[in-house]
Amino acid sequence: MEGVSVDDKHKIVVAVDESEESMHALSWCLSNLISHNSTTTLVLLYVKPRPIIYSSFDIAEHIFSADVIVAMEKYGTDLVNSVMKRAEAVFRNFNRNVNVEKVIGSGEAQDVICDTVEKLRPDTLVMGSHGYGFLKRAILGSVSEHCAKRVKCPVVIVKHPHDKTTLPSNSSLKHDDGF
Amino acid sequence: MEGVSVDDKHKIVVAVDESEESMHALSWCLSNLISHNSTTTLVLLYVKPRPIIYSSFDIAEHIFSADVIVAMEKYGTDLVNSVMKRAEAVFRNFNRNVNVEKVIGSGEAQDVICDTVEKLRPDTLVMGSHGYGFLKRAILGSVSEHCAKRVKCPVVIVKHPHDKTTLPSNSSLKHDDGF
Repeated sequence: MEGVSVDDKHKIVVAVDESEESMHALSWCLSNLISHNSTTTLVLLYVKPRPIIYSSFDIAEHIFSADVIVAMEKYGTDLVNSVMKRAEAVFRNFNRNVNVEKVIGSGEAQDVICDTVEKLRPDTLVMGSHGYGFLKRAILGSVSEHCAKRVKCPVVIVKHPHDKTTLPSNSSLKHDDGF
Repeated sequence: MEGVSVDDKHKIVVAVDESEESMHALSWCLSNLISHNSTTTLVLLYVKPRPIIYSSFDIAEHIFSADVIVAMEKYGTDLVNSVMKRAEAVFRNFNRNVNVEKVIGSGEAQDVICDTVEKLRPDTLVMGSHGYGFLKRAILGSVSEHCAKRVKCPVVIVKHPHDKTTLPSNSSLKHDDGF
C-alpha cells in the first residue's frame, strides 16, 4: 500500500459499498465526527470481492471464457466507480474541509477492512452494520462484528435508519438527574 | 423509567462501568462527538448485576445471612457511586456544555443497555468493547457485540488503547488520492 502516510493527523476510515447503509454511515460520519474547521483525513475504503475464476482444466460446474472474465472485471471496476461517485455526491451535501483518500481493496471484506485499519492506524473506523439477516448473522456474525472484535481503534457501526429490529423489555431502570 | 424525556435534542447514551475501558469510551465521546457549542444530553448508564439471593429454604450451596445481603447491596451502591464519581472526574477534564443524566439499571448488561436505547432513543450509543477474552468472546459474544446487533442507533465500540489484539495481513490494497 504505497503512498499511504501514517502521521499524527486525525484520520477516519469509512468502509463504503453499494448499499444505502454504507452511504448512511458516511453521512453519519460527516455529520457527527467532522467539524467545519477540521483537518481530518477521510479514507474511503471499498472492498472488491476476489473474482472467482475457473480454468477449463478445473472440475468445476461453471467454466467462464476469457470474454466473460473480462466482462466481470469491467463490472467490478464500474461498481467501484459507481460507489465512489455516490460517496462524492454525499460529500457535496456537507460543507466539510477534509482530505479525502480512496483505498480499493480486494478479498474478504472483513479481512481487508481490518488489514487497512492496521496499516493506516486511523482514529476511528466507521461502517454500516453489513448484517446478513437473522439466521446467518446469529451463526456466522457479520462483517462489522468481525471488525469490531479485531481492530484496535474505536469502531462506529451505523445501521440503516429503516432497520426494523425489535428489542425485548426485560430489565429494570432507575433514572437520575445529572451531577 | 419515569422522568426520562424523549425529545428531538441530540442525545448520547454512554454505558459506563468500573473498567478503565468504559472511562476511555466516555473520554472518546467527549472528545469526538460533543463540540463546545453543543446542546447534547449525555446519559450515563450504569448496570448493576442482579443480586443473587438464596433463602435458607433453598437447596443451595451458599446461604447468605441478612447481614451479608445488606453488605452486598451496600457494596453495589458504593460501586455505582464510585463509577459515577470517576465519570464526573472525566467530565471535569473536558470543557463541554452538556446536560448530564444518570440512569442506573439492574440485570444483564446487554439487555439493560438495549432496553435503555429502545426507551430513550438516543442518536448514538457509546460503550467499551466489554470483551470476555478470546474463548468466551468467540463462543458467546460480548456485551458490545450483542448491543451492536440489536440497537437501531449508531453504536460506537471503544477499546482500551492498551488492547494488544493482533491482525493478520492477507488482503490486497490499492491506494488512490481523493476526488
